[in-house]
Amino acid sequence: MGLFSKDIMSMDDLFMHQLQDIYYAEKRIVAALPDMIEKATAPDLRQAFTKHLGETKNHVKRVERVFDMYGADPETVRCPAIDGIIDEADEVAADVADKKVLDAALSAAAQAVEHYEMTRYGTLIAWAKELGRDDCATVLKENLAEEHAADRKLTDIAQATVNGAAA
Amino acid sequence: MGLFSKDIMSMDDLFMHQLQDIYYAEKRIVAALPDMIEKATAPDLRQAFTKHLGETKNHVKRVERVFDMYGADPETVRCPAIDGIIDEADEVAADVADKKVLDAALSAAAQAVEHYEMTRYGTLIAWAKELGRDDCATVLKENLAEEHAADRKLTDIAQATVNGAAA
Repeated sequence: MGLFSKDIMSMDDLFMHQLQDIYYAEKRIVAALPDMIEKATAPDLRQAFTKHLGETKNHVKRVERVFDMYGADPETVRCPAIDGIIDEADEVAADVADKKVLDAALSAAAQAVEHYEMTRYGTLIAWAKELGRDDCATVLKENLAEEHAADRKLTDIAQATVNGAAA
Repeated sequence: MGLFSKDIMSMDDLFMHQLQDIYYAEKRIVAALPDMIEKATAPDLRQAFTKHLGETKNHVKRVERVFDMYGADPETVRCPAIDGIIDEADEVAADVADKKVLDAALSAAAQAVEHYEMTRYGTLIAWAKELGRDDCATVLKENLAEEHAADRKLTDIAQATVNGAAA
């Protein structure tokens, strides 16, 4: 991003900027999940994190496919939002003494990540359609569907086991 | 947060930490919205931001009520997540040259804020119930309902006017 020039001139530019933002975010999540898997105690939570790590690696590839469809090289732009969400998760996790309370904190942190991705994919899909790129929207929708499903799964786990065990 | 001690010993502590986090976030949003209202061009977007500023001031009061119900003083804890989301919104907004593209960027940024709040309130409500504090959950649900409604309204505006005007 230019400090002295305005680099986003069109919706095409804004779409590309947002794509670079989610590309950075997905890569950051791939890097963060192994640590969350290691910290989690509840088996179903560990399993959900592990499954989502596999999905997230696929999300990176799908975003790369959209770059390719758009005729652009895959590049990242630093995304302070996901940095903040993950930093906050790390800070809180470091501050929790009890293993079961930590599971509840980790689950909540993961849901904050999912919600960030859901809003970004929702926006990207709307912009792709507006730009006449339904082909890109279709690929991005696959990622959105998996973020939604991961979020719902975490809600189910929190309600079924994690929150009850921690309280 | 302690750097050398673990301050969160129980679900009560975690609930209180999350409440302090959303209290910080709501105050940060009250401070950020006037700038977004000023930057927005589309009348329906300005109107939605203005309405939500009023709602957000009420959210601060409702969170203060929950502190009071819980027998705690209202305190904030720095929330790197909302800081990152708002910093990113500011950075992108500063980088957009075209007024209509800026509207699309502002609307997307506001939806990222809404989604952050939705996930945090969802978690707080679940934890309040688990702690036997349905009374607190009821108050927090009022905030969640308004965040949901604000997010839906922004989706409607983006689809009806903002994205089309920008593309």
